[in-house]
Amino acid sequence: MLTVQDALIRLQKFWTDRGCMIVQPYNTEVGAGTMNPATLMRVLGPEPWRVAYVEPSVRPDDSRYGENPNRLQTHTQFQVILKPDPGNPQELYLESLQALDIDIHAHDVRFVEDNWAQPAIGAWGLGWEVWLDGMEITQFTYFQQVGGQNLDPVAVELTYGIERIMMAQQGVSHFKDLQYAPGVTYGEAFGQQEYEMSRYYLDDADVATNQEFFDRYVAEATRMVEARLPIPAYSYVLKSSHAFNVLDARGAISTTERAKAFATMRGLARDVSQLWVERRGELDFPLLKSEAPKVLLGAAVRHPADDQEDVDPAALPQDSQLLALEIGVEELPPHVVQQAIDFVRASLTERLDATRLTHGAIDVVGTPRRIVATVAALSAHEPDAESLRKGPKVAAAYDADGNPTKACEGFARGQKVDVADLVRAEFDGAEHVAVRVTETGRGVMEVAGELIAGVIESLRADKNMRWSDPQLSYSRPIRWLVALWGETVVPVHASDLVAGRTTYVHRTNPEPLVRVAKADDLVHVLTTHGLVVDPVQRRAQVVEQARQLAGSVGGTVDVEGESALVDEITNLVEQPHGILGTFGEKYLELPEQILTTVMRKHQRYLPVRDDAGKLLPYFVTIANGDCDDELVRLGNESVMRARYEDAAFFFAADLKVPLEELRAGIAKLTFENRIGSVAQRADRIRDIATGFADTLGITGDQRATLDRAGELAKFDLSSQMVIEMSSLAGPMAKEYALRAGEPAAVATALLEMEQPRTAGGEVPQTTPGAVLALADRFDLLSAMFAIGAKPTGSSDPYALRRAALGVVSILRAHPQLAGITISGGLRAAADRLRQQGIDVSDESVAAATEFVVGRFGQQLRDEGVPVGLVAAVTPLADAPGVATQALADITAARAETRFPALVEAVQRITRIVPEGTPAAYDRALLVEDAEQALLVYVNELPDHANDALPQWIPDALPLVAPLARFFDDIMLMAEDEALRAARLGLVQTVVERAPRGIDWRELNSAL
Amino acid sequence: MLTVQDALIRLQKFWTDRGCMIVQPYNTEVGAGTMNPATLMRVLGPEPWRVAYVEPSVRPDDSRYGENPNRLQTHTQFQVILKPDPGNPQELYLESLQALDIDIHAHDVRFVEDNWAQPAIGAWGLGWEVWLDGMEITQFTYFQQVGGQNLDPVAVELTYGIERIMMAQQGVSHFKDLQYAPGVTYGEAFGQQEYEMSRYYLDDADVATNQEFFDRYVAEATRMVEARLPIPAYSYVLKSSHAFNVLDARGAISTTERAKAFATMRGLARDVSQLWVERRGELDFPLLKSEAPKVLLGAAVRHPADDQEDVDPAALPQDSQLLALEIGVEELPPHVVQQAIDFVRASLTERLDATRLTHGAIDVVGTPRRIVATVAALSAHEPDAESLRKGPKVAAAYDADGNPTKACEGFARGQKVDVADLVRAEFDGAEHVAVRVTETGRGVMEVAGELIAGVIESLRADKNMRWSDPQLSYSRPIRWLVALWGETVVPVHASDLVAGRTTYVHRTNPEPLVRVAKADDLVHVLTTHGLVVDPVQRRAQVVEQARQLAGSVGGTVDVEGESALVDEITNLVEQPHGILGTFGEKYLELPEQILTTVMRKHQRYLPVRDDAGKLLPYFVTIANGDCDDELVRLGNESVMRARYEDAAFFFAADLKVPLEELRAGIAKLTFENRIGSVAQRADRIRDIATGFADTLGITGDQRATLDRAGELAKFDLSSQMVIEMSSLAGPMAKEYALRAGEPAAVATALLEMEQPRTAGGEVPQTTPGAVLALADRFDLLSAMFAIGAKPTGSSDPYALRRAALGVVSILRAHPQLAGITISGGLRAAADRLRQQGIDVSDESVAAATEFVVGRFGQQLRDEGVPVGLVAAVTPLADAPGVATQALADITAARAETRFPALVEAVQRITRIVPEGTPAAYDRALLVEDAEQALLVYVNELPDHANDALPQWIPDALPLVAPLARFFDDIMLMAEDEALRAARLGLVQTVVERAPRGIDWRELNSAL
Repeated sequence: MLTVQDALIRLQKFWTDRGCMIVQPYNTEVGAGTMNPATLMRVLGPEPWRVAYVEPSVRPDDSRYGENPNRLQTHTQFQVILKPDPGNPQELYLESLQALDIDIHAHDVRFVEDNWAQPAIGAWGLGWEVWLDGMEITQFTYFQQVGGQNLDPVAVELTYGIERIMMAQQGVSHFKDLQYAPGVTYGEAFGQQEYEMSRYYLDDADVATNQEFFDRYVAEATRMVEARLPIPAYSYVLKSSHAFNVLDARGAISTTERAKAFATMRGLARDVSQLWVERRGELDFPLLKSEAPKVLLGAAVRHPADDQEDVDPAALPQDSQLLALEIGVEELPPHVVQQAIDFVRASLTERLDATRLTHGAIDVVGTPRRIVATVAALSAHEPDAESLRKGPKVAAAYDADGNPTKACEGFARGQKVDVADLVRAEFDGAEHVAVRVTETGRGVMEVAGELIAGVIESLRADKNMRWSDPQLSYSRPIRWLVALWGETVVPVHASDLVAGRTTYVHRTNPEPLVRVAKADDLVHVLTTHGLVVDPVQRRAQVVEQARQLAGSVGGTVDVEGESALVDEITNLVEQPHGILGTFGEKYLELPEQILTTVMRKHQRYLPVRDDAGKLLPYFVTIANGDCDDELVRLGNESVMRARYEDAAFFFAADLKVPLEELRAGIAKLTFENRIGSVAQRADRIRDIATGFADTLGITGDQRATLDRAGELAKFDLSSQMVIEMSSLAGPMAKEYALRAGEPAAVATALLEMEQPRTAGGEVPQTTPGAVLALADRFDLLSAMFAIGAKPTGSSDPYALRRAALGVVSILRAHPQLAGITISGGLRAAADRLRQQGIDVSDESVAAATEFVVGRFGQQLRDEGVPVGLVAAVTPLADAPGVATQALADITAARAETRFPALVEAVQRITRIVPEGTPAAYDRALLVEDAEQALLVYVNELPDHANDALPQWIPDALPLVAPLARFFDDIMLMAEDEALRAARLGLVQTVVERAPRGIDWRELNSAL
Repeated sequence: MLTVQDALIRLQKFWTDRGCMIVQPYNTEVGAGTMNPATLMRVLGPEPWRVAYVEPSVRPDDSRYGENPNRLQTHTQFQVILKPDPGNPQELYLESLQALDIDIHAHDVRFVEDNWAQPAIGAWGLGWEVWLDGMEITQFTYFQQVGGQNLDPVAVELTYGIERIMMAQQGVSHFKDLQYAPGVTYGEAFGQQEYEMSRYYLDDADVATNQEFFDRYVAEATRMVEARLPIPAYSYVLKSSHAFNVLDARGAISTTERAKAFATMRGLARDVSQLWVERRGELDFPLLKSEAPKVLLGAAVRHPADDQEDVDPAALPQDSQLLALEIGVEELPPHVVQQAIDFVRASLTERLDATRLTHGAIDVVGTPRRIVATVAALSAHEPDAESLRKGPKVAAAYDADGNPTKACEGFARGQKVDVADLVRAEFDGAEHVAVRVTETGRGVMEVAGELIAGVIESLRADKNMRWSDPQLSYSRPIRWLVALWGETVVPVHASDLVAGRTTYVHRTNPEPLVRVAKADDLVHVLTTHGLVVDPVQRRAQVVEQARQLAGSVGGTVDVEGESALVDEITNLVEQPHGILGTFGEKYLELPEQILTTVMRKHQRYLPVRDDAGKLLPYFVTIANGDCDDELVRLGNESVMRARYEDAAFFFAADLKVPLEELRAGIAKLTFENRIGSVAQRADRIRDIATGFADTLGITGDQRATLDRAGELAKFDLSSQMVIEMSSLAGPMAKEYALRAGEPAAVATALLEMEQPRTAGGEVPQTTPGAVLALADRFDLLSAMFAIGAKPTGSSDPYALRRAALGVVSILRAHPQLAGITISGGLRAAADRLRQQGIDVSDESVAAATEFVVGRFGQQLRDEGVPVGLVAAVTPLADAPGVATQALADITAARAETRFPALVEAVQRITRIVPEGTPAAYDRALLVEDAEQALLVYVNELPDHANDALPQWIPDALPLVAPLARFFDDIMLMAEDEALRAARLGLVQTVVERAPRGIDWRELNSAL
């Protein structure tokens, strides 16, 4: 059996064999291998750096007295830094797994999007967590920025989670049972340390002492920055960070302290990073001159040069051929795959349109690792094109005698033609001399090469990164290109990338590099290697396999309900390979939300249910291609067991804590530095909600429910379960409240106050729930707008769009809450924030209102409501329930054929009658027939200003004819002022007795 | 080329292959691998523990900004703990060197005594530094005690100095030039860190902050001890230790702080150690149950069982045979080798005498690795012996009728004889019945087996240790026994050791285990394998080889002058193999004392000089047996170069510092916790010396010299050179003083104040030097006796015996200083100590005086002065110069034949005359002839009370005859009181006019 220490030695050997230095763990407590200066300093600046080391990583917060099977206050990371990116880090990494006796052909190894950011040190990168049969075993990151500095060159970081890898490899379910060394278990070697250090971190560390440590470490770090000594400075930054973590684990960090500490550490990290680079510069960047091997050995990768072929242009086919393009990437995030397909399709189409090549259908498909495009029948050449090149005006080209002027001769000379060859042509209405020019069509090689390079270079995603390529930037590195026109490689040069004819199939294939003979073969080659490049096909396979596997145990998979998950899974693999796993029935005793959240969010497993929709102890995972099903199933089951074991641990622990204590615990959670703690937010929500209740006159049971739920608001955020899985906030509140003996209505309200959880998600059903949910969202929106944190085009970190839609959806669903308007709710929330001493400007409230109303309009348009109709009810939009009803009424009214005429009449009045005209008239002056006729009806018209359309329409319809006649016969704007006033007053009365809040002009246009 | 990181990986591999666990360096700064809890905690208690790890060891005091070629603030240790002692740790260690590509057959690898003790944590052990061609590369220790606890089982610690080993292996002379990884030097990887951390430790660390750290770390450690959490507690002990080291490097530790800090850390280490064992006990000592392999694989060692032979007692020879015994040990300290030979010889002789075996000569020789004894012609059997066993008294054995009583019958029955067979015999003057018993002589196997076991079990040295053996204890482990009587193995069982016939020749021999056919072969076998087992022969070879090698470059080796060194070298090897090395001539510019001190003390090299005694740039080292001379020479030369480079660095650095600054620097050096700093001691020496000068009336140049030297006293102790090589204290003072422009006389006095450096060493020649040296020693003695630190039988840590002898030797050599007595000097020193606030009791002064006087007497006896003569001058011993003169005078006086008679006469008077009798007489009463005759001479006798013998004798000799007559004729004790008083007064006058201070009785007996 491979022991833990064997694994460490193997990894050291593996990476030193590939040119890495070995250094030692740092001699002060660090939270991760990343924090060792061998990473955090060395990735900065231009020097190359390849290093590998073990790092026992200390996380006081993860202390569990050695009891939790997966969680240790000190866990062992193996850290690798490759700077610059060697070009094949994924392949090297997979080789390293094999060095640990992990058979990557039998296992399901996947690269699952996971982006790393540590704002506390101004650092971020893009990458993956690497999954081994569903278990995260490695963090794989392309560092982009550290200490606020852009990294150039970019560094690749691999962080192996040694305990996890070895638990999987050894098949044990508790870290204590790992064979650490021959005959010695991990528990025997380190169990006492886990217990004792957990005791220190959680129970025994002296708070005042550690606070003093923190302050003094910071002071020493600051002094050392001033002394221009980055290494001692950084060592004190690490010490301060550990002291902070100890305090945090002891629950001794208040909101303000946390904010202050983070700002301090961020500032120090920035200073130290900058100083480090400066100092290295002063030393002339010693490692730039080192003789370290420049190229990493390692896994075979395609060398583009291998594909370079001499092409005899004369031998190229003259007829059109299929163009096939493959853009090979490292695993794209699932949501980027479809974007990339769309982008490439659009870009190809547009760029081809700009050429004179002819072509047939453009077809683009893709997987996480490749975008494949084909262009049918792409012509071999652009046809020649004729055009006229403009010369001087004829008037200036010839003198009075008809002889060419100097200007004309000069033009002809410049164009290398005889004056005699000039023609006349009209340009912008004036006659000019001109020369007829033939643009020779270019060959497909030249055109397509440039065009494809353009596509590659313009590829962008929502988040982009840099890698070893000097210019390209994309969601993940682009590693290879295949571009074939018929049998010929298209000469594409996109930055350092050169197209060839070698594609890259499954990495686990014995021959992962495959030559493609001709364009027509590309998809075929991929398909015969199992790759399902069309996402539609792939999705169908996922669904089919999941259904069959679930069916094999008498279950079903709700593929409609899990649609988003199925989409994600589809773009996590290139070749869906479903595997059915099972888990202990005992876990079914846990709340279903927990079980499904783990499956969906963490594992991307499809839950299996019986016909009644009840969960069965099964799940379907979709591996990427062929593997040893049994092995992969066991692996996934073991991950599931560990996760459920964790969840059961948290659940049991939470149940022991009284609700009030949990509620008190949220005071320690920062919501936002400037806005305060989660407890403060919960208090505000409670107060805003009760304010609404007062306004709305909610009493009795509903009021009691609302008050109690308000008191408990957000309490579950301090539960271990929710800290572990934040998406369970709400469901866990309900679960814990019920188990603590709270009334069901209170539990429901606590759940509902977190609804809707997504755009279009379920909204609260009960009034207390709805009021609390509104209060929650009004508070969030007011607060964030107050501090200027409103969403921008690409960034909405506080999910304010979702909050705004939530407000709208709730109000639309609860007409009984019509007393709460958007603007009123936001004002109430603003007042409450001001009570807390937060400065909320009226402008910010107005901006928030506009934002929410705007989202409502967008929601309506997204629902297919015509723009005009949306505009017609916009004046009502501050009360979305009312506006929605108005829309419904309008729709209903359209059944009445005279309705448009009525609307038109009203709109006509609003258009003609000056603003401010009183709805009063002197009947005595209205003597004309048409006036009299209208007057009859107007007199009988009830005032429907505060009614809805359905009440108004029957009463108003009879006005249609007399109004028409009135406008036909009567001169509204009579010269006599009194008469004019009476006439205007009469028709204005019609408008004023119509329901308010309809934009009649917009409505008229829309009908 | 093997890089540094390769070496670490190789060592990890080597030791894991032999059952060691790998752990990681500790995550807080530690000064040595020993301090990692994986050593310091785990060696405690009964659990087995085998571990290997890298430990970057941080020693702020060794900071040199990365400039010194050998000294780093962080150096890399590779640490191995083998608990229990596997029985072959040396062999395993040598194998590990081979794993580093070190050819132990070509190199000279030696185990040189080096005992480890860290009183600050109550820890000590015995072992070696391992030398590779003269360079210390590893510390090898059998831990005996940690945290004040005896270790059971004992643990073996190996600490490899990686930078040193690799500098030797790679042949580089500065650590920065080491190849750390392929293409990356150590300097490139860690140079900046060395510089910056040196800056922090030496210049920039904030003192107040680190003091605060120290206090708070200690407080946390103390709290954690109270919480019974040894691991967190120990981690804070380490942190406090590092904070202390930082403060120390910043020069911020005062004497009292140091004392207090050490006491604190010692106490904590003790508490933590005790707590650790208790906690492990509470956990049931988990590793006792672990399945770790119980036996280490590794180098082939002799298994005693292999030698077990079935012996047919009947087939044993009947005639006497040679007995050969070999006791195989791990390298004994050189001084123990001869002790061991003597012990075994004495023990064998005594034990054989107690048997009835006959034998010839007993011959014992030995080397550091074996004691070899032969007993010629040891008989095959003890002869039978007859004896009488006592029964009841005859009176009780037979009744009145002469019939045997019950008692008699019982006795006979008990002895299994008939009553008739009883005989009568006298025991203690009474007649008893008895039985004649024949004691059958035992065979040689039985007798010799027991006897040899007894020798082994009783072997002891001055410092003894335990190892894997359950009972034995000795200077170093005893690993094998060869015991042969003729051709037969003697069945010896000494604890776990079993004798056999396999000896162990050079470890580097391809076949290190050699069978010995018969006793006569043992020495021959060893000799033919190159081992020179006779120390006399070995010494002769050392001398001969050294002379030849020195001669080959026209030099000589002063083998007489270096006698002690030659003795040491002789017992450092089993086979002397001289190698001549050279060093750069430029180093000859350094003071000779430095050069020779390095050669002798550090390297055990013999210096080579020209005929005029001037040093030549050569040295002779004696390797242990055959090796690659060229390789070993180069290695030793490189060590020498590094050492001289270091020395030159220190020397140059010291020369830059003004003497006053160096003098001020000694305030930071603790002399003794209770007595204060070295500066305080130097102040006292200065004051005592000037007091003496006042008393003695020293003026003029001598006084100026003494005053100046007093001001500078001990300044060199703060020089880097002396801190590095303490034995240079004195010579460096002279050197630095001269170079600083001090007068030669001052420089000489500074050198001389440290003299004599050894018992019998050179004493100061000048008066200022002598006075300062006396003041130095009086201060030391007074101070140490004052705090009760007087020497005990085996322990004299402050070398008070040497100080006392120094006082005596100086006073004997400087008659002009007769005004300084031992008691007076100690009193003066005591007064000065009291000024400093130190409590010095009169009793302690008296005890010190008695101690010094006692040493003087011992010195005289050692010089061959008869005990009686010594006693005769003891009253003068407080002034050793005077006493010595008196002895000389006595010796001279013995030429006068009447001298004994004179002495006898004086002694007779002193015997008879009561004490207190006045030396006055009424002449009128003395009328007898004999009285008159004596009176004549007495009247003429000058008073020589304050003279020496030579002045007195000529005047006193004429008294011999009249005194004899007086005693013959005169009744001294006359009845008449007045007459008696006159007579007594007359003879008392003779005594009182004789030189004082002679013990006439003792002198009389001695003559």
